[in-house]
Amino acid sequence: MSFERVAIIGLGLLGGSIGLAVDEALPDVATTGFDADPAVRRRAAERGLAGTICETAQEAVADADLVILCVPVGAMGEVAREIAPALKPGSLVSDVGSTKASIAAALGKALPGHAVIPAHPVAGTEHSGPDAGFASLFHHRWCILTPPADADPAQVDALAAFWRALGSMVEIMDAQHHDLVLAVTSHIPHLIAYTIVGTASDLEDVTQGEVIKYSAGGFRDFTRIAASDPTMWRDVFLNNRDAVLEVLGRFSEDLTALQRAIRSGDGDTLFDRFTKTRAIRRSIIEQGQDDARPDFGRKDHDD
Amino acid sequence: MSFERVAIIGLGLLGGSIGLAVDEALPDVATTGFDADPAVRRRAAERGLAGTICETAQEAVADADLVILCVPVGAMGEVAREIAPALKPGSLVSDVGSTKASIAAALGKALPGHAVIPAHPVAGTEHSGPDAGFASLFHHRWCILTPPADADPAQVDALAAFWRALGSMVEIMDAQHHDLVLAVTSHIPHLIAYTIVGTASDLEDVTQGEVIKYSAGGFRDFTRIAASDPTMWRDVFLNNRDAVLEVLGRFSEDLTALQRAIRSGDGDTLFDRFTKTRAIRRSIIEQGQDDARPDFGRKDHDD
Ligand SMILES: NC(=O)c1ccc[n+]([C@@H]2O[C@H](COP(=O)([O-])OP(=O)(O)OC[C@H]3O[C@@H](n4cnc5c(N)ncnc54)[C@H](OP(=O)(O)O)[C@@H]3O)[C@@H](O)[C@H]2O)c1
Ligand SMILES: NC(=O)c1ccc[n+]([C@@H]2O[C@H](COP(=O)([O-])OP(=O)(O)OC[C@H]3O[C@@H](n4cnc5c(N)ncnc54)[C@H](OP(=O)(O)O)[C@@H]3O)[C@@H](O)[C@H]2O)c1
Repeated sequence: MSFERVAIIGLGLLGGSIGLAVDEALPDVATTGFDADPAVRRRAAERGLAGTICETAQEAVADADLVILCVPVGAMGEVAREIAPALKPGSLVSDVGSTKASIAAALGKALPGHAVIPAHPVAGTEHSGPDAGFASLFHHRWCILTPPADADPAQVDALAAFWRALGSMVEIMDAQHHDLVLAVTSHIPHLIAYTIVGTASDLEDVTQGEVIKYSAGGFRDFTRIAASDPTMWRDVFLNNRDAVLEVLGRFSEDLTALQRAIRSGDGDTLFDRFTKTRAIRRSIIEQGQDDARPDFGRKDHDD
Repeated sequence: MSFERVAIIGLGLLGGSIGLAVDEALPDVATTGFDADPAVRRRAAERGLAGTICETAQEAVADADLVILCVPVGAMGEVAREIAPALKPGSLVSDVGSTKASIAAALGKALPGHAVIPAHPVAGTEHSGPDAGFASLFHHRWCILTPPADADPAQVDALAAFWRALGSMVEIMDAQHHDLVLAVTSHIPHLIAYTIVGTASDLEDVTQGEVIKYSAGGFRDFTRIAASDPTMWRDVFLNNRDAVLEVLGRFSEDLTALQRAIRSGDGDTLFDRFTKTRAIRRSIIEQGQDDARPDFGRKDHDD
């Protein structure tokens, strides 16, 4: 089985990228799109983010055999309730939300008896909105599916094939485990980046102008992810509370240990900790999840 | 006044970049270089990191009117003692170390009566060693000079002109203030990056393989700076203890506030904090201290 008509609800970075990627990789698949914001719908039509931009979510999903919800995590349940009466029997509902357990629960509740397989493409940028999407966003990135225990294996396979067609690699995972893994690799890094950027802008003895001028010393790397969409990230933290607090507890312990080493002048502990972390960077580059050029290749574009 | 003969001690990322940049921007200036490691000296000669590679530090500095120490912060005092007897009268000693107050003290002690103007080019990558340097490292980056109160204004001007010739913008600052500003914009970001990468690799319930696979969710941005040289960073933290601990205290308070907001489900506080930080990113890009393309332009190179 494969999907012939795909509906995309929410036409920002993720929804727009899916539309453009389908157009490029699966030209025979028809796409419909809807966004709550009329200005976004207009811009989506101009950019061709979906074949047909509809005026209601129900209209967009009516003929679709795959519906992908691309709205903020906190809006998933509401959108599911809205489309429920219009879904075609036998169609599959999926999503791209950054947390999975709470979305699985919300979609299960809003769509009782309907096939739901949540998913999360681990791909993104710091930009959002209808101008942010691009067709290659998912290339060589992982997409995690978290099918419920009773999911139809044929639908799981079809959804995996869809993501592979867009350039992704696919992994199947339990929703709880997804939320813990992503707390580590995505949510805590964002929380820390938001925090340090906030701390830096609040100091009395260092001006914001100074922080900006000397940001090339390391700080600027954090500002990229701290520029991400506030609505999206508020929803992520509200919906993955337990895993985030667990990993944050570990991080705070480790930071306290380094703080103690600095206070007591324990250079050996600092050196050991700073050595361990290099191997991880090497593996990330080897596996193609980042750019090996110094500075991410920024200097290629200087001047 | 300007410098005709420049000696570079330490031929890694910074020293090598200075040599290459002088060769490109100031072809009439003669450079000599020395590194404690014979293998580095060999490689430096092959790459032409300085016009003459010398077998001792004393030989390298003997005729120089500007000597730049490009060794780890903790080695500055020792190198200064080594070159002291060989320095040409009237020559200027400077450095590129990432902390300034402790280096000013160490150089002042090792070179009593000799002209010393510490400096810090806020430019770098995560790579080190004699293969890491490149001539454009300092382009459009700030170089901070921290002249002592009794410095000769003509020498301050000459050193500023030297750095401008290599492409830098120059700022004069008090050493203590430098150390606080850089604690915020460089040292704490590195400490936090090292910590989170360490935390992630120590979790029992999430494998290292998973951390690497899903690093594109945000984590990979931190691994770049956590791959920086352990010796350099150990020395930075040992030599800028007070400012680092002060900023770290603020960071921990701010993180605790966000942790509390997550625990209590306070979405408004999260949203407010996440909104504030976007303006800083915008300014950094406007001032040319980072790349505006999504993802630092990584996607330009995908596939
Ligand atoms: N950004 C990333 O890096 C990334 C990566 C992986 C997964 N995700 C997940 O992808 C989802 C979308 O994120 P995004 O980055 O694409 O955000 P985005 O660019 O802001 O797009 C979301 C779009 O959904 C619209 N929307 C909100 N509520 C809606 C509703 N009830 N009905 C219809 N449309 C609605 C929004 O309109 P308004 O702006 O008017 O609200 C907006 O146009 C989120 O769940 C996020 O967790 C994001
Ligand atoms: N990397 C950055 O991003 C950056 C940015 C701004 C400023 N800085 C500062 O620049 C300085 C150099 O850093 P780097 O990144 O260029 O480091 P690097 O690439 O490791 O180079 C330092 C070189 O100095 C050599 N060295 C060590 N002790 C020496 C001694 N006593 N006499 C002569 N040579 C000696 C080292 O040899 P061995 O390897 O054999 O010890 C190494 O080749 C540090 O003070 C650092 O704080 C760095």
